[in-house]
Amino acid sequence: MTREVKMKRVLITGAAGHLGNVMRSRLNDWATEIRLSDIAKVDDLKANEQYVHCDLGDADAVMSLVEGCDAIVHFGGVSTENTFDSILHGNIKGSYNLYEAARKNGVKRIFFASSNHVIGFHERETLLDAHSPMRPDSVYGLSKGFGELLAQYYYDKFGIESALVRIGSCFPKPRNRRMLSTWLSEGDLTDLIKKVYAADRLGCTVIYGVSDNPSTWWDNRYAKFIGWTPKDSSAVFENEAYLQEEQTDPNDPAVRFQGGLFVSAGHYED
Amino acid sequence: MTREVKMKRVLITGAAGHLGNVMRSRLNDWATEIRLSDIAKVDDLKANEQYVHCDLGDADAVMSLVEGCDAIVHFGGVSTENTFDSILHGNIKGSYNLYEAARKNGVKRIFFASSNHVIGFHERETLLDAHSPMRPDSVYGLSKGFGELLAQYYYDKFGIESALVRIGSCFPKPRNRRMLSTWLSEGDLTDLIKKVYAADRLGCTVIYGVSDNPSTWWDNRYAKFIGWTPKDSSAVFENEAYLQEEQTDPNDPAVRFQGGLFVSAGHYED
Amino acid sequence: MTREVKMKRVLITGAAGHLGNVMRSRLNDWATEIRLSDIAKVDDLKANEQYVHCDLGDADAVMSLVEGCDAIVHFGGVSTENTFDSILHGNIKGSYNLYEAARKNGVKRIFFASSNHVIGFHERETLLDAHSPMRPDSVYGLSKGFGELLAQYYYDKFGIESALVRIGSCFPKPRNRRMLSTWLSEGDLTDLIKKVYAADRLGCTVIYGVSDNPSTWWDNRYAKFIGWTPKDSSAVFENEAYLQEEQTDPNDPAVRFQGGLFVSAGHYED
Amino acid sequence: MTREVKMKRVLITGAAGHLGNVMRSRLNDWATEIRLSDIAKVDDLKANEQYVHCDLGDADAVMSLVEGCDAIVHFGGVSTENTFDSILHGNIKGSYNLYEAARKNGVKRIFFASSNHVIGFHERETLLDAHSPMRPDSVYGLSKGFGELLAQYYYDKFGIESALVRIGSCFPKPRNRRMLSTWLSEGDLTDLIKKVYAADRLGCTVIYGVSDNPSTWWDNRYAKFIGWTPKDSSAVFENEAYLQEEQTDPNDPAVRFQGGLFVSAGHYED
Amino acid sequence: MTREVKMKRVLITGAAGHLGNVMRSRLNDWATEIRLSDIAKVDDLKANEQYVHCDLGDADAVMSLVEGCDAIVHFGGVSTENTFDSILHGNIKGSYNLYEAARKNGVKRIFFASSNHVIGFHERETLLDAHSPMRPDSVYGLSKGFGELLAQYYYDKFGIESALVRIGSCFPKPRNRRMLSTWLSEGDLTDLIKKVYAADRLGCTVIYGVSDNPSTWWDNRYAKFIGWTPKDSSAVFENEAYLQEEQTDPNDPAVRFQGGLFVSAGHYED
Amino acid sequence: MTREVKMKRVLITGAAGHLGNVMRSRLNDWATEIRLSDIAKVDDLKANEQYVHCDLGDADAVMSLVEGCDAIVHFGGVSTENTFDSILHGNIKGSYNLYEAARKNGVKRIFFASSNHVIGFHERETLLDAHSPMRPDSVYGLSKGFGELLAQYYYDKFGIESALVRIGSCFPKPRNRRMLSTWLSEGDLTDLIKKVYAADRLGCTVIYGVSDNPSTWWDNRYAKFIGWTPKDSSAVFENEAYLQEEQTDPNDPAVRFQGGLFVSAGHYED
Repeated sequence: MTREVKMKRVLITGAAGHLGNVMRSRLNDWATEIRLSDIAKVDDLKANEQYVHCDLGDADAVMSLVEGCDAIVHFGGVSTENTFDSILHGNIKGSYNLYEAARKNGVKRIFFASSNHVIGFHERETLLDAHSPMRPDSVYGLSKGFGELLAQYYYDKFGIESALVRIGSCFPKPRNRRMLSTWLSEGDLTDLIKKVYAADRLGCTVIYGVSDNPSTWWDNRYAKFIGWTPKDSSAVFENEAYLQEEQTDPNDPAVRFQGGLFVSAGHYED
Repeated sequence: MTREVKMKRVLITGAAGHLGNVMRSRLNDWATEIRLSDIAKVDDLKANEQYVHCDLGDADAVMSLVEGCDAIVHFGGVSTENTFDSILHGNIKGSYNLYEAARKNGVKRIFFASSNHVIGFHERETLLDAHSPMRPDSVYGLSKGFGELLAQYYYDKFGIESALVRIGSCFPKPRNRRMLSTWLSEGDLTDLIKKVYAADRLGCTVIYGVSDNPSTWWDNRYAKFIGWTPKDSSAVFENEAYLQEEQTDPNDPAVRFQGGLFVSAGHYED
Repeated sequence: MTREVKMKRVLITGAAGHLGNVMRSRLNDWATEIRLSDIAKVDDLKANEQYVHCDLGDADAVMSLVEGCDAIVHFGGVSTENTFDSILHGNIKGSYNLYEAARKNGVKRIFFASSNHVIGFHERETLLDAHSPMRPDSVYGLSKGFGELLAQYYYDKFGIESALVRIGSCFPKPRNRRMLSTWLSEGDLTDLIKKVYAADRLGCTVIYGVSDNPSTWWDNRYAKFIGWTPKDSSAVFENEAYLQEEQTDPNDPAVRFQGGLFVSAGHYED
Repeated sequence: MTREVKMKRVLITGAAGHLGNVMRSRLNDWATEIRLSDIAKVDDLKANEQYVHCDLGDADAVMSLVEGCDAIVHFGGVSTENTFDSILHGNIKGSYNLYEAARKNGVKRIFFASSNHVIGFHERETLLDAHSPMRPDSVYGLSKGFGELLAQYYYDKFGIESALVRIGSCFPKPRNRRMLSTWLSEGDLTDLIKKVYAADRLGCTVIYGVSDNPSTWWDNRYAKFIGWTPKDSSAVFENEAYLQEEQTDPNDPAVRFQGGLFVSAGHYED
Repeated sequence: MTREVKMKRVLITGAAGHLGNVMRSRLNDWATEIRLSDIAKVDDLKANEQYVHCDLGDADAVMSLVEGCDAIVHFGGVSTENTFDSILHGNIKGSYNLYEAARKNGVKRIFFASSNHVIGFHERETLLDAHSPMRPDSVYGLSKGFGELLAQYYYDKFGIESALVRIGSCFPKPRNRRMLSTWLSEGDLTDLIKKVYAADRLGCTVIYGVSDNPSTWWDNRYAKFIGWTPKDSSAVFENEAYLQEEQTDPNDPAVRFQGGLFVSAGHYED
Repeated sequence: MTREVKMKRVLITGAAGHLGNVMRSRLNDWATEIRLSDIAKVDDLKANEQYVHCDLGDADAVMSLVEGCDAIVHFGGVSTENTFDSILHGNIKGSYNLYEAARKNGVKRIFFASSNHVIGFHERETLLDAHSPMRPDSVYGLSKGFGELLAQYYYDKFGIESALVRIGSCFPKPRNRRMLSTWLSEGDLTDLIKKVYAADRLGCTVIYGVSDNPSTWWDNRYAKFIGWTPKDSSAVFENEAYLQEEQTDPNDPAVRFQGGLFVSAGHYED
């Protein structure tokens, strides 16, 4: 259902980051007003955009940030492997602060950008769905797993609905052979965000954020009720020379397991 | 397999009702002779049509009705919530009488119009398939559940094959937002009836009667062996104003559960 | 939990039948007052027993019967294969009348004597549990299947809790080799009824009514939360001469399928 | 991923047989050099083809045959029901000799032509996937089941990857109504072989070798990570007269079970 | 296997808390040396006991604490609902610090006291096993869920084995009716700890910490390989007056859901 | 059901081997006549015993051997890892010859001694049941897997029933720590053989041959209908010094995987 209810005030966290920035422009005419938050500066504001500097680890700041919003698209926090302290601050405290603020401000539905690194330690030949057990491949993946449990808790106890979108690899095109399987086009992500808010009911639902690629490790059957159908495919990139030439070894942990280099990496050290 | 074996004599019960009437015209050239039954009068008979007045709750009448038919498309009985007595008569006695008549007359395969109200008390975010437990949302749904068990019994004991088609919402277009998920086009239903009779083997198979809509709660994978592929989609109606404007609340039982208003309704009182 | 809450007024339907009569005496000191109903006369009433003649197919009579009871142990209706009309009357109308009366009189929990004939068309080597699909082996089994769906409906819509007890073979001792697997001792059944009413929560739960026999086809794991543990076993009867001498053929439908003779019997004819 | 890595030296066994011969020409430009083996003579060699006469039951001969190959497409052995001795020789000893030769020669990935007759005793209405239990319908099917276990053993113990392709019916067009469900086009098979070798990781994976037919009994979801998407469909043949005219009986074992005539045939006698 | 390998140096965290204190005395002769840590003072040290004051949220302190230990029994941190900040400090940072210290000090196996509050939002009639999804009922439960994911990560990436013991209610006797289902005797817990360290292999395994009670919501089948068999049962307490007299309502969230009062409680406020 | 039907003529193959010899004496009074076969000589025949020298790889010899028997207890063939040729001869040809002889001689039920090495490549923490996929750990295990498929084929096509008993470790006592989990007492095996022949129906059923040990990797729930309940336990051996002293490493393939040393062994070389 592409009910494009125009939203009143949408909050996009992490608006200075890669995904936040891309979605900021794609979602511009979806809402009357868009509030953009980040710890970094967001430039070139459009007429309906508002920038709020916010450290997600600061509970009071987040409480103010969320006030008056009817939708939250949460890309904020640390978006790759990092020290435990920084991830604890941005992702664990950050997501808790966000849900608490949503609860106190009456926000009813959250788009939560989770990650495929929540399930990165499954082998490629294991087809996953929304009920598969989490097996994080990194402290980053662990923090996203925490976020998913947090969302489930706020749904069960307070009725706040969440889309837990395990984003694959959202770039203009796949950067390596692994991304032929995990690629999510920007257009499909845009469409997914809109569907999540157009759905009559969302519950607390895990969705794999992946386009309609020829090869896939993830089955979105349990999210079909939302009505999202990705339209793009990595097939158009298959013959790119840099993908044809990349050498891979099936026994390399970065190939064997879904999380790729996050799996083969050791522990992040300062 | 679209083997359009032209049937010799097809019985359509409930021919004066909405679905019976629609299918009567769409199936006209599928059979040499079409016998139409109802307790209400059926008008404007075509050359190969025959009308038989029949109360399905009358065992003798049904026995005569079925005689000489090689196919039964059963839309008859009460088609929405009603008093227990009327549903007992038309649907419980009615379906029993029909299967007994089929057994004694040697009819080997029945298209049984069941209903999504057999599973109406599942939540929307629960993806159902043919093996999901029944959870009727009404006395009507309960009677259809009885019909499905009856068909299973006649299959296991006497080898009579049935298609148990849990029809969603078969109208020219979706009447409300819920039907964006449950809509079955008349063309897809027509095609399904023909496939059921063209299949080399049917067994006793639950099929969700739903078109290829963007949002769905039902998975027909266990019926794929029949070869039916719905061709229509509710996507073409998504932008209709009356659907865009409808207000829904995810916590409304009529939205939370698949059965819609049948769930939120209380018990039917005379 | 053997919390033997002494009940105030318990209704036992079918009190003149085999099981009703046995349980009537075993449950006598469980309740301050026991109301016994049947279409047949119940004799030799004890001080706390009351007999009410009642045809379960008579809605008004059942409404009166249920008034003032805080528990219902439902053995009434037709208890073996019979004509459709008699089963329709006693079991289908009968169970509907009972649940409607419970709803209107505020009875919150019902012990519903279902039957293994609800699942009689499964093969013996198929281990069943509470989630296995129903495959009735008779019109009798079909009516019990209807009763189970009815109970589910009254639970989902009105919150009335039910124990759907698929009774195996409750006799003083197994009457044939099949019953070595299906035997339920009278003591275990008594204990089960008490547990059903002592449980803090029951939901709408399928329980296989079977003792702790060496051979079993049924797994009660999903009912473990009720806390019932059968204590008796058919092992003590295994060496009885009449069981040793009985000849069986593994390909006989009455041996191959769980329902025994109900499976191999044809349709019941008047 | 259609990474058409041009192979250096590919071995095709059974090259004089039906499938081997068809694939020989379709795969010609896929490899720098193609080694063709069979006990029968292979004629009309192209420039990059080499013929090696080889009895697969001869361990030493197979060891030499495999030397220097970087891929094996194994169609060799007995390809239909036959005496146990001939199947033991060609398929059981043959496949063992092949895997041993692969192990000793360092071949890392094998395309193993298994067969739907490994699962032929499942009913048509049972949807199978890669995890369904094997139920061979013939000594031929049994030998292919042995081959699949053998491949699993060589994967678990020695890391040799295999595609276990349960080929349906690979002919220019379906020869009978059953093949409307089991048909695999030659083009889709060609594409599958290439995908198996282009995949970054294969594991030991069961794949049903079947085109995108309207009716299917097999679900390839667990092989989606390989990225094969069949493009052809038997739908284009549905209206052929010889298929419309074929008479079938749903209770015929050759219709009831997936293996078709292999099921209804008795034991093969010399 | 009760291989009572006498451990060399065991660390018990949370030794001043209820469980830590009880296990401290029961495990005394299991190890040559027992190191007890807590932020509170631990008194009355026995000859082989050593007390180390330690705030688990302090990474350096934990690193020192773990040094030289060959086993860790982790009861430390906040053991009931509390403010997010205190749980973040003691349980989230605390468990991270512990696993990091284990990794750097070469500790290979950890007994992690998780909690039933990790799955508290499942209904009582849902039988859970080790593969059931987490549904925390509190911020406390959420932190234990984080701990389980953390342990899985350290197992998948670094091979550290963990027993994730979802402790029910470990007290001398059940304190209320709910605990008749969740009770874990001190003796059974003692035995479980020893089994976890005696097992030849542990992996990363979820175990429900519950005695052999008549009523249970949890199935430990996937942990059977460890060889733990609880010996005690809450059945001996069933007739205690305070349990008989407790009034419960099946629709009370604290009765409907497994987490009890944690479910019905609102959010913890300072 | 311990219906100890005294058999008329039982064939025990492999009677000179370890298990055959043990069972020969334990089953002596179970049958009027016991035919013992082996390629090695069997001595000290009792009055009702008959020795037939037989190479199982010789089809004609096996045909004669089976003639006139009403039960077959098949321990014959190669019972541990060996060359492919010897296993092909004794186990693959041998089991085929046996089933063919059973078919032609009208034997209806076979006790087939399979092995845990059919599933040896599963990890210890994977609980297996009768439906788990086979993962042989050796050529020996592979041949037993072939035997299981063969038995399934003879059941599906010809109705011959088999017990496929995956024997753990049947010795007077466990020889190492692994056998604490896999131990099968001789008494329990004796009882199992009798139950298999006393059962009214057997089908083609996988049974794990293991006593009631504290630690187990195998769940026999799908074989419960046979009524076998092992009575012995390895618990009585747990404190034996040689078991306490054995050193194990959880990452040793022989500990990680169920097959033990068969897994860690390389390929058998002559």
